[in-house]
Amino acid sequence: MSRKKNSRHVMEGVQAAHDGMKALPRKKFKKPADATMDIQAIAAGVRSGSRLYLGKAITLLESSSAEHKKNGQELLNQLLPFTGNSIRIGITGVPGAGKSTFIETFGEMLTGLGHRVAVLAIDPSSSLTGGSILGDKTRMEQLARNPKAFIRPSPTAGTLGGVHKKTRETMLLCEAAGYDVILVETVGVGQSETLVRGMVDMFLLLVLTGAGDELQGMKKGILELADAIIVHKADGENAQLAKKTVSEYKQMMHFLQPATDSWKTRSLAASSVEETGIPEVWKMVKEFEDTVKVSGYWKKRRQEQTKDWFRSMITDELHSRFFDHAERRQLVKTLETQVLNDELTVAQAIMQLFE
Amino acid sequence: MSRKKNSRHVMEGVQAAHDGMKALPRKKFKKPADATMDIQAIAAGVRSGSRLYLGKAITLLESSSAEHKKNGQELLNQLLPFTGNSIRIGITGVPGAGKSTFIETFGEMLTGLGHRVAVLAIDPSSSLTGGSILGDKTRMEQLARNPKAFIRPSPTAGTLGGVHKKTRETMLLCEAAGYDVILVETVGVGQSETLVRGMVDMFLLLVLTGAGDELQGMKKGILELADAIIVHKADGENAQLAKKTVSEYKQMMHFLQPATDSWKTRSLAASSVEETGIPEVWKMVKEFEDTVKVSGYWKKRRQEQTKDWFRSMITDELHSRFFDHAERRQLVKTLETQVLNDELTVAQAIMQLFE
Repeated sequence: MSRKKNSRHVMEGVQAAHDGMKALPRKKFKKPADATMDIQAIAAGVRSGSRLYLGKAITLLESSSAEHKKNGQELLNQLLPFTGNSIRIGITGVPGAGKSTFIETFGEMLTGLGHRVAVLAIDPSSSLTGGSILGDKTRMEQLARNPKAFIRPSPTAGTLGGVHKKTRETMLLCEAAGYDVILVETVGVGQSETLVRGMVDMFLLLVLTGAGDELQGMKKGILELADAIIVHKADGENAQLAKKTVSEYKQMMHFLQPATDSWKTRSLAASSVEETGIPEVWKMVKEFEDTVKVSGYWKKRRQEQTKDWFRSMITDELHSRFFDHAERRQLVKTLETQVLNDELTVAQAIMQLFE
Repeated sequence: MSRKKNSRHVMEGVQAAHDGMKALPRKKFKKPADATMDIQAIAAGVRSGSRLYLGKAITLLESSSAEHKKNGQELLNQLLPFTGNSIRIGITGVPGAGKSTFIETFGEMLTGLGHRVAVLAIDPSSSLTGGSILGDKTRMEQLARNPKAFIRPSPTAGTLGGVHKKTRETMLLCEAAGYDVILVETVGVGQSETLVRGMVDMFLLLVLTGAGDELQGMKKGILELADAIIVHKADGENAQLAKKTVSEYKQMMHFLQPATDSWKTRSLAASSVEETGIPEVWKMVKEFEDTVKVSGYWKKRRQEQTKDWFRSMITDELHSRFFDHAERRQLVKTLETQVLNDELTVAQAIMQLFE
């Protein structure tokens, strides 16, 4: 906490989406033999815990070049046996709930306890806004300088499915690199929470005091995706109100279904500024891990998540192949208009489309 | 309410899934000219309000014969200009909430007010259980005998997508036949509520007193799909408790997002046995219709629903074409196992599958 802020240090910690690639001479990937050597070197580098190599590996997987992609998959395949040994925690929150501050304080505490912490992000709006999550390198400065932490901004642009794939693969690489706590941050927009819920073990929702109204902008059913609701900024004159809000959420839980079999959704207050409640969050996470591992649901969920991922990638692939023809996209639009104007039944439109 | 129960009358009102077809000589569909004639005759019959012809039309659309399907679509196309003039209401509820009793009482009241009421059902479990919704012809006996009502059991078997398609098409036929209130009943299982929500204007959730626990078996987020929560069986010694439950749900609503833009989700008590609260439900439905039509969301939602239906049918078609090969289904299984055993990355499995 006492180290001075320094933008060079920030640059070391925060990985920009494509900076790592520059360090790898492109020509090396031209010849298969060299590529294999490189893959082995990168795999060893990742395993050694080098953030530089981890960054290179991620960039390789994110590359749009066919050869890089192939090499990236080969690399990931080599590292697969070393993945899975982390607790994967999704974090979302209403706007203004202080997700970054929470992640920074939580992450600093965890590294202090000897953990290695990776912070990833899914931000479906990033292609439009230029990245509202982790894009701003001045955020999480402290954690970014921490040698036991690794912060990776959201993959830029691409379909939500593509972002999903990249984040899942990055998570696996981080695990192979020895990060034992993975925090996946997301904004409460569109389908991003459902995607994140589908790749993490535990899901935390950050809210503010005076619960309720603020949830209006969030995804429907968000409370039933969360394993814990953290009433954040529970400090100063908010502290008392936070207690009330926590108990309101506790009452709510009676009406809602828990997100995880064998775990009753919790509600607790925390302040990142006063650093209160943060150790309690970690204590709860460990309790969650114990409970859900004993019940057998931990492993079951991970297997189901992988299955779902595979199935959704099949659908994605079928879609992108089908719609990868300008004429067909045009036909779909034309048919859709006819259907909306009651000139055609949906079934007839489908028949015409697949004729 | 005074008419005697009589199984023949029941048979007249309740349409079995395939009884209508028998009345149409099969050979007529062999020759195109006759088929066209038949279509025009059936279309005229449907428009005249004949339940017999409506049953025939539905059976034609549900048929698995390619020729029937084609004729069915042609028929539907002819009737499209006469569709859309109803209020489409989805009804779901926790087990034991008394959906059938509610629908019967509600439907009887509506026909008494001069409305024509069609009751359809989506029951994804029907292929397994032999039909738990409307399959039992002794249910809704009163309404089944009512000449202003039409009750159609859930299409048997088939994929959920297929059942969805058939129910949507049946709904359109009912509208063309002059039914101005369509009630779509569903059980709280799997994706059925989401499907029904995607085809109706308004969605009602029936619950019991002592709210909360009973929702555990329902789809997550069900409260945020509902436009109104009806605390049913609010009679006898339950009446007082029902009042409390209604106010509990009202409080809940503060924390949840409304299902419909421009409409605040309501909570009210009703008893089908004592016939109390039922007129209030209809009054609320009319209020909903007025409010949401004025806000413009009524039309917007219908257009979006049709678009979504079209898009989901494309996905369905892509899936069924892709998986319609025994070898490929086997390969998917093999690859899935390899992925689950960490022998292959998901991306590699996808590459192999689409090679």
